[in-house]
Amino acid sequence: MSASSFAQLPAPPCFAVIFSSLRSAGDDDGYARMAARMVELAADQPGYLGIETARGAEGFGITVSYWTSLAAIAAWKAQAEHRVAQETGKARWYEHYELRIARVERAYAGPR
Amino acid sequence: MSASSFAQLPAPPCFAVIFSSLRSAGDDDGYARMAARMVELAADQPGYLGIETARGAEGFGITVSYWTSLAAIAAWKAQAEHRVAQETGKARWYEHYELRIARVERAYAGPR
Repeated sequence: MSASSFAQLPAPPCFAVIFSSLRSAGDDDGYARMAARMVELAADQPGYLGIETARGAEGFGITVSYWTSLAAIAAWKAQAEHRVAQETGKARWYEHYELRIARVERAYAGPR
Repeated sequence: MSASSFAQLPAPPCFAVIFSSLRSAGDDDGYARMAARMVELAADQPGYLGIETARGAEGFGITVSYWTSLAAIAAWKAQAEHRVAQETGKARWYEHYELRIARVERAYAGPR
């Protein structure tokens, strides 16, 4: 998927992982490789519905992934390669992050 | 608030408006003025908890605002000046957008 694409989701309900982060300076290549790999890997997980991501020039970014259930989110969190990425992220790539898990109740699109 | 700052939220539950959008080309100044004004205005609404926003160079962005209740979100949607911004956005600023309303169930932060 491209960084500038919308997730095509089924009608609600579903679950969202809202991950906001501020990148540490440096290792842009390593980070970009990991981020691309995680997008690819997430798409292969059971219960995956879609992902959207945006990061501004100042290094603050938001990634929202969508899932069928809380169990699917828990399984993705525990996935082995993803765990390595999480630990490397804590050690090297993120100055700070906030992760929020939410149940999507309603959705609409526009303008046309 | 700055575009690269984290929302400081109370412990869950709360409600999130996840607004992802692809900007139309042009009118960057008008869009920036409106976006800054909406951030300011939202912060004055009853039930507002915080906002986070990121937009990449390709024009795809995600803004997540957090609220105490669905009623607070409905009131914000109906706010007069915000309605004008919504209509102008449909006509001029957004190629496409997706809006999802979600109940935040869990939250944590890292790495330190």
